[in-house]
Amino acid sequence: MIESSKSGKAIPTLTYGMIGGGQGAFIGDVHRKAIGFDRKAQLVAGCFSRDYQNTLETGAALGIAEERLYKAYQEMAEAEGKREDKLDFIVIVTPNYLHFPIAKAFLEQGINVVCDKPLAPELKDAEELDKLAKEKGLLFCVTYTYTGYPMVKQAREMVKRGDIGDIRFINAEYPQDWLATPIESSGQKQASWRTDPAQTGKANCVGDIGSHTENLAGYITGLKIKTLAARLDTFVEGRVLDDNATVMVEYDSGAKGVYWISQIAVGHDNDLRIRIYGTKGSLEWSQEDPNYLKVAHIGKPTEILSRGRDALYPSAAQNSRIPGGHPEGYFEAFANVYSAFTNALIKKNTGETLTDGDLDFPTVQQGIDGVKFIGKCVESSQKGAAWLEF
Amino acid sequence: MIESSKSGKAIPTLTYGMIGGGQGAFIGDVHRKAIGFDRKAQLVAGCFSRDYQNTLETGAALGIAEERLYKAYQEMAEAEGKREDKLDFIVIVTPNYLHFPIAKAFLEQGINVVCDKPLAPELKDAEELDKLAKEKGLLFCVTYTYTGYPMVKQAREMVKRGDIGDIRFINAEYPQDWLATPIESSGQKQASWRTDPAQTGKANCVGDIGSHTENLAGYITGLKIKTLAARLDTFVEGRVLDDNATVMVEYDSGAKGVYWISQIAVGHDNDLRIRIYGTKGSLEWSQEDPNYLKVAHIGKPTEILSRGRDALYPSAAQNSRIPGGHPEGYFEAFANVYSAFTNALIKKNTGETLTDGDLDFPTVQQGIDGVKFIGKCVESSQKGAAWLEF
Amino acid sequence: MIESSKSGKAIPTLTYGMIGGGQGAFIGDVHRKAIGFDRKAQLVAGCFSRDYQNTLETGAALGIAEERLYKAYQEMAEAEGKREDKLDFIVIVTPNYLHFPIAKAFLEQGINVVCDKPLAPELKDAEELDKLAKEKGLLFCVTYTYTGYPMVKQAREMVKRGDIGDIRFINAEYPQDWLATPIESSGQKQASWRTDPAQTGKANCVGDIGSHTENLAGYITGLKIKTLAARLDTFVEGRVLDDNATVMVEYDSGAKGVYWISQIAVGHDNDLRIRIYGTKGSLEWSQEDPNYLKVAHIGKPTEILSRGRDALYPSAAQNSRIPGGHPEGYFEAFANVYSAFTNALIKKNTGETLTDGDLDFPTVQQGIDGVKFIGKCVESSQKGAAWLEF
Amino acid sequence: MIESSKSGKAIPTLTYGMIGGGQGAFIGDVHRKAIGFDRKAQLVAGCFSRDYQNTLETGAALGIAEERLYKAYQEMAEAEGKREDKLDFIVIVTPNYLHFPIAKAFLEQGINVVCDKPLAPELKDAEELDKLAKEKGLLFCVTYTYTGYPMVKQAREMVKRGDIGDIRFINAEYPQDWLATPIESSGQKQASWRTDPAQTGKANCVGDIGSHTENLAGYITGLKIKTLAARLDTFVEGRVLDDNATVMVEYDSGAKGVYWISQIAVGHDNDLRIRIYGTKGSLEWSQEDPNYLKVAHIGKPTEILSRGRDALYPSAAQNSRIPGGHPEGYFEAFANVYSAFTNALIKKNTGETLTDGDLDFPTVQQGIDGVKFIGKCVESSQKGAAWLEF
Repeated sequence: MIESSKSGKAIPTLTYGMIGGGQGAFIGDVHRKAIGFDRKAQLVAGCFSRDYQNTLETGAALGIAEERLYKAYQEMAEAEGKREDKLDFIVIVTPNYLHFPIAKAFLEQGINVVCDKPLAPELKDAEELDKLAKEKGLLFCVTYTYTGYPMVKQAREMVKRGDIGDIRFINAEYPQDWLATPIESSGQKQASWRTDPAQTGKANCVGDIGSHTENLAGYITGLKIKTLAARLDTFVEGRVLDDNATVMVEYDSGAKGVYWISQIAVGHDNDLRIRIYGTKGSLEWSQEDPNYLKVAHIGKPTEILSRGRDALYPSAAQNSRIPGGHPEGYFEAFANVYSAFTNALIKKNTGETLTDGDLDFPTVQQGIDGVKFIGKCVESSQKGAAWLEF
Repeated sequence: MIESSKSGKAIPTLTYGMIGGGQGAFIGDVHRKAIGFDRKAQLVAGCFSRDYQNTLETGAALGIAEERLYKAYQEMAEAEGKREDKLDFIVIVTPNYLHFPIAKAFLEQGINVVCDKPLAPELKDAEELDKLAKEKGLLFCVTYTYTGYPMVKQAREMVKRGDIGDIRFINAEYPQDWLATPIESSGQKQASWRTDPAQTGKANCVGDIGSHTENLAGYITGLKIKTLAARLDTFVEGRVLDDNATVMVEYDSGAKGVYWISQIAVGHDNDLRIRIYGTKGSLEWSQEDPNYLKVAHIGKPTEILSRGRDALYPSAAQNSRIPGGHPEGYFEAFANVYSAFTNALIKKNTGETLTDGDLDFPTVQQGIDGVKFIGKCVESSQKGAAWLEF
Repeated sequence: MIESSKSGKAIPTLTYGMIGGGQGAFIGDVHRKAIGFDRKAQLVAGCFSRDYQNTLETGAALGIAEERLYKAYQEMAEAEGKREDKLDFIVIVTPNYLHFPIAKAFLEQGINVVCDKPLAPELKDAEELDKLAKEKGLLFCVTYTYTGYPMVKQAREMVKRGDIGDIRFINAEYPQDWLATPIESSGQKQASWRTDPAQTGKANCVGDIGSHTENLAGYITGLKIKTLAARLDTFVEGRVLDDNATVMVEYDSGAKGVYWISQIAVGHDNDLRIRIYGTKGSLEWSQEDPNYLKVAHIGKPTEILSRGRDALYPSAAQNSRIPGGHPEGYFEAFANVYSAFTNALIKKNTGETLTDGDLDFPTVQQGIDGVKFIGKCVESSQKGAAWLEF
Repeated sequence: MIESSKSGKAIPTLTYGMIGGGQGAFIGDVHRKAIGFDRKAQLVAGCFSRDYQNTLETGAALGIAEERLYKAYQEMAEAEGKREDKLDFIVIVTPNYLHFPIAKAFLEQGINVVCDKPLAPELKDAEELDKLAKEKGLLFCVTYTYTGYPMVKQAREMVKRGDIGDIRFINAEYPQDWLATPIESSGQKQASWRTDPAQTGKANCVGDIGSHTENLAGYITGLKIKTLAARLDTFVEGRVLDDNATVMVEYDSGAKGVYWISQIAVGHDNDLRIRIYGTKGSLEWSQEDPNYLKVAHIGKPTEILSRGRDALYPSAAQNSRIPGGHPEGYFEAFANVYSAFTNALIKKNTGETLTDGDLDFPTVQQGIDGVKFIGKCVESSQKGAAWLEF
């Protein structure tokens, strides 16, 4: 944490480092912009690529001192761990298989962690991270971006307050089409590592976007999966991992659900959508039209709730930045995730005790649930879409 | 068949009778209006209700001679079968459990049949009807209404011609909400018989609208189900039969699919929707917005095909009646089903041989597929959503 | 009127004749199907074309006795006027310039009239028809089809009951694109007569669809135009009449509005849409999605009212035929217009006095308003979009 | 401009100051976030409010040295003008009537300007700013935010390349509803200054959002208004300025158009929408759904172009930041305006000559057009919606 010396009043500004996100990468810059949105943290160190030249150039473009640009994450964790002006948190935006060792290395140095999902290929690794974070008293955020949308928070709150009654059925889907052809064979970078078991783990589609689907359903409803049966498909010739999946789920409350996840669904960009049916009403939210929430109550006309216009619950309203009709999108949702995380960190740094309300960002527990979901889906599919206890 | 004597040129006009569709019923009048739309057949006999008074009043309102109003379908089949001016066809719009015996009785009298779906509670009964119709050389139409929409025919033709490549995945859904509460317990007529095993058979939701879903997918794509796993849910307390269902399917071509069918999905009226993903493109059609077809091709912007405006294949174009932007709906789709059936019947009556193209109405084979689908869904669900060969 | 002799109970069945609507025409058959929908009237006479052979063939196909097929409307009016079983009403579906003389000829013979809009090229002619109909005690319906949609009737009733407060502003538009190119020069029949001043009168676009726009606004709101300023454009080279128009209006209540009407708006089929803003709320209805009504109230989420599902006012509900989610369209709206007209006629034929509620079909007064609107628009445009008193 | 000394490679970082945007204001922080998005400029000075305490607190929260926090803009312009590390640009986000004097003061000190619209109440003042900026060789950006959306740039490029042929008609509308009730009388800050002639000038609605409408139409099409007729309405009792307006326009090319602008249109948040009809096709873009562009070509199905997915022209593609289906919104559009401006400024600072392509941000000329448009609308309306030369 650095103190602003320019003004009379001290401003707590957090510092952070990043692993991954060099030139040619996509999501790293989204993280940086999302963090910068609310000016709560400053990037001061990084290991942006396995290619040190890339790290140097990325670092220079971002105004980072060369002494804090590293050749390897291990070196970085060690060096930063020793500094008096230690990083407040590290952001991990590497291919999936590296999430676990990097997160572990920084936790061990007493540095809070923000990590992309899925948290780890293996459940035990994800659980180890949880254990470690708890032991060290560190915050751990897994960037399930879609939890940052105001209307998602509104949906969550409506469910919690019983506005749609007891939940009966959830239909969640996440179709994309960017892997409808074997673009990995032509070297497209995003496709190459995601479809490569060595870098991404045992699942592609169900890991990359299936975990978002599972997380969104869980985040909004609070329901826990009890059993599931999954069928993972690989439609594109030559591909090893799944590019489409159907999952039937049963929740501990007795509610049921179905998830459809696809990367071969021609015509869909990033079409995450969830529909939740209760005894009194229903909710529908679509990520591609995120400023609205469709609400139906038995016997009443369907309503379209508009962010920034209609009366929202406080947890939603405080994540809405501008008036209705001025669209907010993906960056703002991401910024909301970071805003909650950095607010919690600032409070923690002051020594205050964090409440549940302070922890309205996706935690390591959600990361663990995601890893478990992926693992169970793969196992069920291998057993012929058999039903498995969760 | 009666000949018009009013004009010089003979007009072939078919005659038909109806079982069911008395006062208080809903679908009978829809059939009558659909048949009347293109003036191809005239209603001349009926047994509209188990209550003869109802039949008499309905018949009078419809201008039917009292001598052709009957107390029971058996009596009617016998009497009509003996007439020289025998009915060209009978229309059966009774509760499900009566479809089979009535259809059988009229086939045996040499009368062509139009019957609501599901064709019969038991597969063997459905197959018997098929056999009987073939032996007698009679036409048999099962009124899967949604096959009558021009944009459904366009989708079917596009698939057949390979416009979207080989099909990989089908996502079909049919959510409604009218059974979200136990309205059958308050005596609502439509709900009462549909949720009563004695009148409707072993399935409610999956029988009533699940069979439409299965039929639509099969009609458009021509794919045959190879295996399926179904979970039937009963969410409303006190209800015996299913009111929600999820079905995972695998087709003989290797394509996969998922169907979701619900009558407790608050906010949905009659929201049948199908999305079909191929190697080259995709199609999406929604029954509530039936005049449009969403078409996506890899690497191109999504297109919205408009009935009556855009270039459609002949089988679609000839089922479109008015210019684009003048909405056609449910009645017109129904009329198209009847138009194809009556055209075939008129041609058959002249002694001409019917071609495949003449049979573009839902036949008894589709009815059999539907009965099989319902049966397999029920069986799979009873076995814990086990996978069954079709 | 003919009495049904087939059954014990007498069924009043109206008879009608038609002028226009022969082979090659479009709207005539729509009228016939709309009338047939509710089985309230039977076509028994016609003069379907200036080409007698066409009339004969059309008549034969419709089962009309040859003695009631006529070479000219004058002959038909005279002959039918003398019959004991005189037509209950005549339907006029000719090019515009013939509406007036034909309507007049049949009124003079004591026959009720249904006539397409616009009623007449000249206001005085339209007023003469009104006078004549009143003198003779005859019903006169002008087929403003869009008034037949249930959700239009719902909107009308909501305005009447003050549900959206006092109206401030109306934005109505009717874009089409079928005249975006000079298709009349290639002989397209519909385009040829509509763009020909000799057959259509002094306006094309503002006459054909502008009058629908004006009528819809007036029908729903009850507001009367006080002043207007119109600019009529002719964008397609070689065309004489207007193919696009903008009209600013002021109503007698002080409310304001703007109408945009176009036949060169590429991408629009038949996109009539109206939005009405009041002091308490607003309404939006689109003809291409006619089963829904968008309703907004200050401080509340926007609602989507669904025909057949949500609670509608009686005048709307009784014009809805099937459950929500089963789309009704253009034919059904048309049938509703005829249903109201024939119900009124049947009641009148019994000698009962008709109430305002019986006259919920577009009357000759609406036809007169339309003619006046067209005339004022043309005059205003010729004067440089000058403001004119209405 | 400050040089980064932390890394080997020099990073040009611009500095800027801001007038307005203190605590309680809305748009100032949007500007700051938009500038921060791409890290091209740093806020180092400000006069955020007429209330110096507010300025001090806002400045402290933003980490600005107290010596560069000012009590009045005049003082700030003078002091900053004398500094060696002079501001690269000033951002003006005050009520409208202050735009002119502040912009003038900073231009005179040789500081580039970014100013909210409308540029000035009087045309001559706006023109003076243009003259002054040219004399001093300074850049001047007027923040017409909506020009920053990628799909707006795509539309502009499509028109320029003739993809839709020659433009015939433009229908642009900008309905909002936040002033449907007299909220200014209850002291709502945004409403109070906007409806007060002393602070906002001679127009409210047509000034605030009408100028955006005019700008968007002009930006996309390049058409210049030749004549217009405007009717400004004041519907809410007690209000002095307009809250609704209808404007008929004619462009120098012969194309025609209509604009509807409203702040009383209940149910609309910020519903800026433009539809452009050409001889070959049409375009439709809606600000509330900004990631898509509806494109129609004569004789082809309507297409939905998706940002980040479909092939866009370079000027659009380079303003798109993330893959399709990840919604971008208002902040990103704003950031694009600033990105173009700061890129131009950085280039200018190096002494290079700016090309037209470098100036793809809304310039003072667009600001002048806006002021002229507002003035002509007010004048036309006062003369009874008379037609005026532009």
